[in-house]
Amino acid sequence: MELWFTDKHTENVHFSIKIKEHLYHGKSKYQSIDFFDSYEFGKFLTLDGYMMVNEKDEFIYHDMMVHVPMATNPLIKKVLVIGGGDGGTVRELTRYSSVEVIDMVEIDEQVVKLSQQYLPQTASKLIDPRVKIYYDDGLSFVSGLDNTYDLILVDSTDSMGPGEGLFSKAFYDNCYQALTEDGILVNQHESPYYDKEAKEMKRSHAKIKKLFPISMVYQFHMPTYPSGHWLFGFASKKYHPIDNAGFDAWKEFGLKTKYYNTNIHKGSFLLPTFVQDMLDEV
Amino acid sequence: MELWFTDKHTENVHFSIKIKEHLYHGKSKYQSIDFFDSYEFGKFLTLDGYMMVNEKDEFIYHDMMVHVPMATNPLIKKVLVIGGGDGGTVRELTRYSSVEVIDMVEIDEQVVKLSQQYLPQTASKLIDPRVKIYYDDGLSFVSGLDNTYDLILVDSTDSMGPGEGLFSKAFYDNCYQALTEDGILVNQHESPYYDKEAKEMKRSHAKIKKLFPISMVYQFHMPTYPSGHWLFGFASKKYHPIDNAGFDAWKEFGLKTKYYNTNIHKGSFLLPTFVQDMLDEV
Repeated sequence: MELWFTDKHTENVHFSIKIKEHLYHGKSKYQSIDFFDSYEFGKFLTLDGYMMVNEKDEFIYHDMMVHVPMATNPLIKKVLVIGGGDGGTVRELTRYSSVEVIDMVEIDEQVVKLSQQYLPQTASKLIDPRVKIYYDDGLSFVSGLDNTYDLILVDSTDSMGPGEGLFSKAFYDNCYQALTEDGILVNQHESPYYDKEAKEMKRSHAKIKKLFPISMVYQFHMPTYPSGHWLFGFASKKYHPIDNAGFDAWKEFGLKTKYYNTNIHKGSFLLPTFVQDMLDEV
Repeated sequence: MELWFTDKHTENVHFSIKIKEHLYHGKSKYQSIDFFDSYEFGKFLTLDGYMMVNEKDEFIYHDMMVHVPMATNPLIKKVLVIGGGDGGTVRELTRYSSVEVIDMVEIDEQVVKLSQQYLPQTASKLIDPRVKIYYDDGLSFVSGLDNTYDLILVDSTDSMGPGEGLFSKAFYDNCYQALTEDGILVNQHESPYYDKEAKEMKRSHAKIKKLFPISMVYQFHMPTYPSGHWLFGFASKKYHPIDNAGFDAWKEFGLKTKYYNTNIHKGSFLLPTFVQDMLDEV
């Protein structure tokens, strides 16, 4: 027997992965949750049938989400992670002994519990004593917070489904308020290639750039996401991600990273013309 | 009826495209050749069942192959293209009125003739008066040439199949000889993500870096190639692609490009750690 998982990158483009074993299938209050073991990507998690994280390339996403802001301001102490139930973003944060607070708000407790069982590669550091997990909606969690976090990481699903509120203007407003004056917001910013994600990319950027004095987008290669061309947003009250970066201080942390380095940090903000044009036109 | 074309990115990872129409199927002396029309990517060409070029993202590959060396040395006048039967590389070269000679060596005449029929988007400039097409093996064509071209572009298929000789040490030796003292060699350099391409990437780099004083690799996002993370090699006798680049002179050409710009030129040479490590270890 051959078992294949298919991720619909678009209605007309399918990405299929040969499966060793379907480890888990269930439905939470919010979404369907599956874990697979595969030949090429090791174990992976899907939500509502879309690839979220796999053992082969999760390092790319988590390196770029965490180390870009941490190298921009290596003095960051208090961090809020919104979403990220697989634990990979928290894992990278726990590598910084200087980080004192890691609050994680995940709407779906099942994703966390099941990732701890099936994906220890990403979830194993959720037990770090600095980590507090709140099972709550990210939008309501940040509402009313003021001057609390140095860094907010929005490690969300797409704007369809339970992550929808994390792409709203109200949410970004609340994030702005929740950040300290040094504050940085990094968010999952979709992709420029296929129409669906490109539309969300533009909507998200339009909202964030009205709020933050510094609002940029950076890119990386994420082979298992649609098109492999993925983006994060970098919004900041004070720190420019290149001009104000603390690369020397970051190097003193002595972290070994498989994707991130201070060169790719700089290079990732240099965008192709068609992406820059899309961002400029909003 | 639904018709789907499937490209095997690996034995365990398939990329499938919904087809409007199978426009052409045939076998040349060298390979099987197919043209399709699709919903997401427009018309596309496959050789031996692998995606070569499609109307949606060919601009990325051709921009990065041509404009990176042309902006490094805007004085380039004589260019040799090896492979590239779809015509996209030649098309970008013909946009430079300063380029005087464009020789193209393509082993498979059928690919050229059929691309002119089915893919005019890439092939339409093959009739430019500066273009001479030689239907020959690239390896034997460059053998014995001396101090002839300012730029050689190796727009080849993978190292399996008819493109195999274009990854050999003898070929690179001959290219070195065929180049002027200002000469630059850009070659299709595979991908770091899946094992098969990563192995070829390392083999190719090991050979080229022994020959050329400047030997670097640059990356771009190519959504329809395996993993979407693709590389070109940049080898040069004199010009460093950043330190010696002629960006101001290049901008004076006034070319509108959809992927390439002088920022992405610089950023594309800044590589993720795992790619740099693979290149350093050869």
